[in-house]
Amino acid sequence: MIIKIFTTGGTFDKIYFDALSKFSFGEPIIGELLVEANVSFAYDIVTLMQKDSLDIDDADRQLIRDTITAVENQHILITHGTDTMVDTANSLFDIDGKTIVLFGAMQPARMRYSDAMFNLGVASAAVQLLPPGVHIAMNGQVFDPRKVHKNRAKGRFEANCD
Amino acid sequence: MIIKIFTTGGTFDKIYFDALSKFSFGEPIIGELLVEANVSFAYDIVTLMQKDSLDIDDADRQLIRDTITAVENQHILITHGTDTMVDTANSLFDIDGKTIVLFGAMQPARMRYSDAMFNLGVASAAVQLLPPGVHIAMNGQVFDPRKVHKNRAKGRFEANCD
Amino acid sequence: MIIKIFTTGGTFDKIYFDALSKFSFGEPIIGELLVEANVSFAYDIVTLMQKDSLDIDDADRQLIRDTITAVENQHILITHGTDTMVDTANSLFDIDGKTIVLFGAMQPARMRYSDAMFNLGVASAAVQLLPPGVHIAMNGQVFDPRKVHKNRAKGRFEANCD
Amino acid sequence: MIIKIFTTGGTFDKIYFDALSKFSFGEPIIGELLVEANVSFAYDIVTLMQKDSLDIDDADRQLIRDTITAVENQHILITHGTDTMVDTANSLFDIDGKTIVLFGAMQPARMRYSDAMFNLGVASAAVQLLPPGVHIAMNGQVFDPRKVHKNRAKGRFEANCD
Repeated sequence: MIIKIFTTGGTFDKIYFDALSKFSFGEPIIGELLVEANVSFAYDIVTLMQKDSLDIDDADRQLIRDTITAVENQHILITHGTDTMVDTANSLFDIDGKTIVLFGAMQPARMRYSDAMFNLGVASAAVQLLPPGVHIAMNGQVFDPRKVHKNRAKGRFEANCD
Repeated sequence: MIIKIFTTGGTFDKIYFDALSKFSFGEPIIGELLVEANVSFAYDIVTLMQKDSLDIDDADRQLIRDTITAVENQHILITHGTDTMVDTANSLFDIDGKTIVLFGAMQPARMRYSDAMFNLGVASAAVQLLPPGVHIAMNGQVFDPRKVHKNRAKGRFEANCD
Repeated sequence: MIIKIFTTGGTFDKIYFDALSKFSFGEPIIGELLVEANVSFAYDIVTLMQKDSLDIDDADRQLIRDTITAVENQHILITHGTDTMVDTANSLFDIDGKTIVLFGAMQPARMRYSDAMFNLGVASAAVQLLPPGVHIAMNGQVFDPRKVHKNRAKGRFEANCD
Repeated sequence: MIIKIFTTGGTFDKIYFDALSKFSFGEPIIGELLVEANVSFAYDIVTLMQKDSLDIDDADRQLIRDTITAVENQHILITHGTDTMVDTANSLFDIDGKTIVLFGAMQPARMRYSDAMFNLGVASAAVQLLPPGVHIAMNGQVFDPRKVHKNRAKGRFEANCD
């Protein structure tokens, strides 16, 4: 079993770029985190895009769908910005035979203090333990994308009708 | 659902104590990590002991068993040293109706570079997703304690007969 | 001797603000760093402003001058964005009887990997060791502001006519 | 000017060695810290020994003396355990023409929370700003080794007759 990891950008991979006094995307950091985590499962990382999820459009979602469908792997992790993670997740529901887990972070992995590493742990467990389907792993929980939303004010994901 | 977290010591909670030029146990750090992780599940932390797992004996295991049995919680996380985590896990198999996940770390959570936060993520997912039983969450995988051992040379957990 | 520390913003104090997918200013972090550094000198921190140094104008520089002149302290540290640190430093040369050291960071102190803490150490030493005058402490060196510029391409400060 | 850096061990370079459930010496980390610090001065690192300073004896001190005397560099930094840093510093006073600064840390540089990077900053400034002689840089201050002691209870260096 090889877990396929697709990175799409989002807060997870942000770096601080002094010359512009702002945050930009850095090289996906997830490979370094998996080494630090001392994981023993096999994985393969592919960068599909580097975008804030507010900038992810239908064409991007089509690319994500097509790539997931095209690979043989049955266990898929996707790092994604949190703002439209639910939308992307819900666009993947008709893919058969694969366990797909989307996750991201509220603080870049490169910050001293961040939820990124923890979320990676939650998602890594979820993708190995759950049956085929699409899930979101944030805030220490695993959600059905059809029944969750990001509470922007609180900066966390919550089940609908909470 | 409130996840009950029992800490027993191990590498996870080690601090560096300059006056002795050595590592000792510090206050359990797991509460701080869960805040950093921005989790939204409810939990309650209890420190049972602070020991290297090579020093955990039958009386200690009896205490761990009795405490798990006594609480109402059905979802139990246990931080534990990695050297005898398998032994402790295997001593808990006859507890009914509870999902119990043991985990620890090869590098203290207080190190700049550590597997602790990731392992906490894996275990947090496992304890919510798995049915009643006992599990070990290390190296990004969830193991049946009856079929795993710590490979000391490699510093990682491996399924038996690998 | 009490070292007076004025914070003006800059990269040093940047935080990541997920709701805006960008970096903003957080509460000045220098107090926390000095505790982590285990310093035994006395200091007092005052936040004058929170600006990128490209936004610091003559009125701001006048405020910085006037405040330094008004306090009794003879040892002054100033955290400042790197883009116009030289300009601010050069505007302070006619203040008598005070050792003034400006410093900042190319990576926010809140990043896992940052020059902020090191720069604070260099500046802390410089302000205690140097005679009255104005200095810039960056990249592990102490510069005369009249003879230094920020090499933006290389992201570091260099003596003029290098 | 090339700063010569001699490492002798001490808390600064400690790592956690899980197999022994204890701290040991790791490869000197100071080179990595200087890269993180984005320094622009030239330096050269030599590992003389890796010892807790309580284990540093007269033969070791002789080695340190002889090596400092033998090199051409006039600017010397020495990382050293804090317990006998004063003793080693005081054994170097009759070396002419060199600015020698000893420093260390109360928490290993590899900890998330450490004074190591800050102390490196203080020492880097001190070795460039001070005239020939021997100095200790700890707790944000630069001390004359003949007039300082380590207050073990408080875990900090203090001038004598404070």
